[in-house]
Amino acid sequence: MRAKLAIGGILTALLAAAGGPVAAQDVNDAPLQQNWAPSEWGPDDKAGAVNRTTSELVMKAVGLVKQGKVATLGKVYQGDAPAFGSRGWRLTIPGLPTGGPFGSHKLVYNDEYLATEIGQIGTQFDGPGHIGVMTSKGDFFYNGRFLEDADVTAYGVGPLGVEHVAQKGFVCRGVLLDAAAYRGGPLAVPSGKGDPGIITDADVEAMVKAQGIAPIGEGDCVFLYTGHGNIWDPKDWDKFDAAEKQSRVAKFNAGEPGFGISACEYLAEKKIILTGADTGAVEALPGENADKPFECHMQLQTRRGIWNIENLDLSQLVADKAYEFLFVWAPLKMKGATGSPGNPVALY
Amino acid sequence: MRAKLAIGGILTALLAAAGGPVAAQDVNDAPLQQNWAPSEWGPDDKAGAVNRTTSELVMKAVGLVKQGKVATLGKVYQGDAPAFGSRGWRLTIPGLPTGGPFGSHKLVYNDEYLATEIGQIGTQFDGPGHIGVMTSKGDFFYNGRFLEDADVTAYGVGPLGVEHVAQKGFVCRGVLLDAAAYRGGPLAVPSGKGDPGIITDADVEAMVKAQGIAPIGEGDCVFLYTGHGNIWDPKDWDKFDAAEKQSRVAKFNAGEPGFGISACEYLAEKKIILTGADTGAVEALPGENADKPFECHMQLQTRRGIWNIENLDLSQLVADKAYEFLFVWAPLKMKGATGSPGNPVALY
Amino acid sequence: MRAKLAIGGILTALLAAAGGPVAAQDVNDAPLQQNWAPSEWGPDDKAGAVNRTTSELVMKAVGLVKQGKVATLGKVYQGDAPAFGSRGWRLTIPGLPTGGPFGSHKLVYNDEYLATEIGQIGTQFDGPGHIGVMTSKGDFFYNGRFLEDADVTAYGVGPLGVEHVAQKGFVCRGVLLDAAAYRGGPLAVPSGKGDPGIITDADVEAMVKAQGIAPIGEGDCVFLYTGHGNIWDPKDWDKFDAAEKQSRVAKFNAGEPGFGISACEYLAEKKIILTGADTGAVEALPGENADKPFECHMQLQTRRGIWNIENLDLSQLVADKAYEFLFVWAPLKMKGATGSPGNPVALY
Amino acid sequence: MRAKLAIGGILTALLAAAGGPVAAQDVNDAPLQQNWAPSEWGPDDKAGAVNRTTSELVMKAVGLVKQGKVATLGKVYQGDAPAFGSRGWRLTIPGLPTGGPFGSHKLVYNDEYLATEIGQIGTQFDGPGHIGVMTSKGDFFYNGRFLEDADVTAYGVGPLGVEHVAQKGFVCRGVLLDAAAYRGGPLAVPSGKGDPGIITDADVEAMVKAQGIAPIGEGDCVFLYTGHGNIWDPKDWDKFDAAEKQSRVAKFNAGEPGFGISACEYLAEKKIILTGADTGAVEALPGENADKPFECHMQLQTRRGIWNIENLDLSQLVADKAYEFLFVWAPLKMKGATGSPGNPVALY
Repeated sequence: MRAKLAIGGILTALLAAAGGPVAAQDVNDAPLQQNWAPSEWGPDDKAGAVNRTTSELVMKAVGLVKQGKVATLGKVYQGDAPAFGSRGWRLTIPGLPTGGPFGSHKLVYNDEYLATEIGQIGTQFDGPGHIGVMTSKGDFFYNGRFLEDADVTAYGVGPLGVEHVAQKGFVCRGVLLDAAAYRGGPLAVPSGKGDPGIITDADVEAMVKAQGIAPIGEGDCVFLYTGHGNIWDPKDWDKFDAAEKQSRVAKFNAGEPGFGISACEYLAEKKIILTGADTGAVEALPGENADKPFECHMQLQTRRGIWNIENLDLSQLVADKAYEFLFVWAPLKMKGATGSPGNPVALY
Repeated sequence: MRAKLAIGGILTALLAAAGGPVAAQDVNDAPLQQNWAPSEWGPDDKAGAVNRTTSELVMKAVGLVKQGKVATLGKVYQGDAPAFGSRGWRLTIPGLPTGGPFGSHKLVYNDEYLATEIGQIGTQFDGPGHIGVMTSKGDFFYNGRFLEDADVTAYGVGPLGVEHVAQKGFVCRGVLLDAAAYRGGPLAVPSGKGDPGIITDADVEAMVKAQGIAPIGEGDCVFLYTGHGNIWDPKDWDKFDAAEKQSRVAKFNAGEPGFGISACEYLAEKKIILTGADTGAVEALPGENADKPFECHMQLQTRRGIWNIENLDLSQLVADKAYEFLFVWAPLKMKGATGSPGNPVALY
Repeated sequence: MRAKLAIGGILTALLAAAGGPVAAQDVNDAPLQQNWAPSEWGPDDKAGAVNRTTSELVMKAVGLVKQGKVATLGKVYQGDAPAFGSRGWRLTIPGLPTGGPFGSHKLVYNDEYLATEIGQIGTQFDGPGHIGVMTSKGDFFYNGRFLEDADVTAYGVGPLGVEHVAQKGFVCRGVLLDAAAYRGGPLAVPSGKGDPGIITDADVEAMVKAQGIAPIGEGDCVFLYTGHGNIWDPKDWDKFDAAEKQSRVAKFNAGEPGFGISACEYLAEKKIILTGADTGAVEALPGENADKPFECHMQLQTRRGIWNIENLDLSQLVADKAYEFLFVWAPLKMKGATGSPGNPVALY
Repeated sequence: MRAKLAIGGILTALLAAAGGPVAAQDVNDAPLQQNWAPSEWGPDDKAGAVNRTTSELVMKAVGLVKQGKVATLGKVYQGDAPAFGSRGWRLTIPGLPTGGPFGSHKLVYNDEYLATEIGQIGTQFDGPGHIGVMTSKGDFFYNGRFLEDADVTAYGVGPLGVEHVAQKGFVCRGVLLDAAAYRGGPLAVPSGKGDPGIITDADVEAMVKAQGIAPIGEGDCVFLYTGHGNIWDPKDWDKFDAAEKQSRVAKFNAGEPGFGISACEYLAEKKIILTGADTGAVEALPGENADKPFECHMQLQTRRGIWNIENLDLSQLVADKAYEFLFVWAPLKMKGATGSPGNPVALY
């Protein structure tokens, strides 16, 4: 039941799991004891914090578009780009051409055939079925759903499926926090609590102030730029040869800077609806509590339905100092999927 | 080299291809004789008509958002939904959970593993590598690229890859043409030229007028609502049992109403940048020229770089009579892919 | 955690699983109480009953080859053939050709790209990781291994992997039991205990006697011919059109004749090492105990390490009355797989 | 249309293909000029040299079994083992368990979901659809079939499918040529013609003589042991860590010793029906004609229907000096596939 992870550096130790069957006490019943369910949107809710979006908030966000500029925030999906653990991306073109010629005009066409962890590779969105907690009642997910429920199967996570979030989509005020500017350079992988590679609640407040933007508030989508994502160059990965790519993949995957849990709790209190970053986890690995890898994932996603999008290309926004923008994106409506690939659009 | 298509009704006959090797004369050299390449954006262009988008057009489109309403236009991806030919969708959840428990907080996670024609199934975008023409010089695609070029391989269509369009994305004035309202009910599969299931250039002009919107113009994205898409119910496909689904899949795939070539030529002259519809092809099958299936595909896409998005859920826009809106969407940056799945966002 | 099965007829009811999380008492602790582990080959064994094969038994089996005849017992793998539940088979040819031309001789080559439940589709072998029992200690599998063990992951069943059986392979005396001849025609899907569609221990003895062969004994591989497999024609499935195929798939999957548990227990006592048949389960569905679907699977495989191969083409052996033969086959050594595809060879 | 190969060492240069569309003269019309078709088994034949097998030859091969020993000759399939070019192997376990619990006995089961170049990875068999020649009439394959034929599609190679060979299977006298013993150690990657890493016709004759076995003759299956395959350890690949595996994969793929074209022509004259080896190509790379990579593939397979099986584990046979044995194996009957995975059985 445990994942074998072929990752390097700090993460290997962080994520090491002892062998043997899981003992009864070897669980975390916080979700049960602290009443993480039902969510504030009721026991039937399947979408989470995106429910906060209102027409008023949409109109306010639309008002941020001043120059008519557009940035696409996704990175290029390709087989040799970094991926977590043993995830992989394989794309082939059947037939070349796949079909035709049809008709007197001799039309031909191509498809592609893809095999991959579609929602959890490259630029990826974490939906309700992605992160949970092992409890004595089973594996607890958003809004009190369990993997052991009858409608969660080998072929889809049922009511935890991303399609329920995707039906709503994200149209919000995007806030860019440029931590690399704030720290005076790209953040390095943190060595533990107190390290500048971890962005705290105080750091968030300081960046908002330094950047001269309105405070983070309800319905916002908040994106962190650390510079770590440039190891996996967002503009032209193919300028590197195979050896250089392999070296960069290892470096990219060996821990990362990002939000600490104090920042995540702060953002949750402000009632934001989405986090994102130029990194693979958005939060620091390791973070403020070294024994709790992906703690923000659990506290924001499983507990509060505040979803997350990873491995964004924020370089154009950083270059343009576009600290506030209209963020528009909806995950794919993939029935029973845990997440989604994406190429979100920022307008400013 | 020819596709075997397990489709029903009219299409089977339309797309029947004679056996035997392709004779030398059995080609269509129109692209070579009519100088379809280089495109108006130069020989290096890989994006097509989306190049028409300007900051001014973006700002004008943003100005269409009045109520703060949001519609997501994708349909749900699932294995038993309609697909063309032998395309298929298989999604599984490795492990359940896929990984964990990690750390003292016992975090677990799920991935999904998907195998599919990712860019050409369900709500799908046709990019530069999808449609071409068999000529005496090889299979001709957008801007004079050939499948026989060295950088088009079994693992991706190289310079024809959708990532180059995806880098730009579509931010445009969306125009909804409600043909079902215009015709007084859902359009049926046409029987041939002159059939009301085919939308002509005159019909487009008449609908624009009837709907009281500004003329179609440069940089617009134009979407046709026929009602045919409701056979594949966009809101709750799972309300049908397996037999009903199979019956509806067959009906959905057996030809479709849509644009005729006269409408497509009209739209091209108006310099639009994207077509779309609630159907699988956007254009009528059969269309005005029964011997040229997918003629609009070739004339808009291969020749002019005006791309296309199929199987949209336009029902909310129709219900709200949202005939003009801000359309925001970018294909996935999948290296070397022919198309992209999608869940575009309309704001109005 | 429960499978949703899109299957028809009797099976749907048989396999219906109640919703809701699994209660503590909702388990079967027989494997724990009856000491199903360690197996008779010791706690480290990963191969099961194939361990019974000796050089002497091999030489005896080789002695059965008299005419120099060869039969291949696999059925053709193709996407429209019957499959259990939602399993599927997708094969594409990347590129066509996939690669080349290479060298002055202009060599080209093709690959195929396949996505499927490789070990559990078509002619398929059930290995140690396929069948288990839900107990209060976890999901119990052959020789006391649990799915909850640390080395069983989303990427392979670890020590339960089929490669350990595959390392040995099956070289045995093959015994064909022609139940269709014995019953005077193809067996029908049984309606319950006592139905002629269920082959009992007494039936096995009677067939051996009627066929005039030596008694079933240690190290034998025993194959049952019911005639049910002809619904999925083993010689030319493609002579049927799509509608006929769909109809036959439904019929093939709606229950099946086969061994009852009394026959399976009998065969286990005789110390055979493999069962097989021209059906999808080898055992009757429903069998002698209607509330225990796949009871033989559990009692032979999980408990005793007597593996099973399904959907064989036994037609040539039946036509030749080849009731005893040299059976030679080894599963694929797929690390961590639950089973294997196959095309076993019979020599006689 | 050309493959991009991510391989190292000598092969990269050998297989480099110039860019640009293929010129009319850039073909090899030898198959057309030398009448490679129809084959000696007639224009309808789809199986090739395996047609030589007779009952008499089968009985003679059966007579080689003296000790009752069994060796399985396949290697373990796993994601981190060597593969050619960009081929890959991904296996996941949906659900874990995939299905259940069923019935009062609470049965659960697992499947695996695999995505891979199934016939051309690991221990692999080259069938009629794998190797061809680019000619002025199209891509020529065994018995004069062309990839451009109407029944060769993106979903299978039609009459070139491996299922036609698989229907017959290989039951033959296996001959092991121990080149490592003959050369006094594992063969190294050859540097060109005359290098001891290339096994010539004279070497074959010398080895047969040295090993004291009967001459190679009609219907034989001939296997070469070079020692190169031990770089990819056939018994326990997992004893190596990830870095060591990567290093060995690179070394394994950087050219290889094997048969030269003179040996292949010799074996063809002797009317053998199958070649095999402990290497990825069986023939030397580079071989006697450095400008013709995979020349044996073309001359044996495309021209004569003598198929080939690669990456065998011959270590037990070598250790036992089992130079003659009964070889029993049939490819999987995969409709329209180019090859097959395998785990052949040797009895001696």
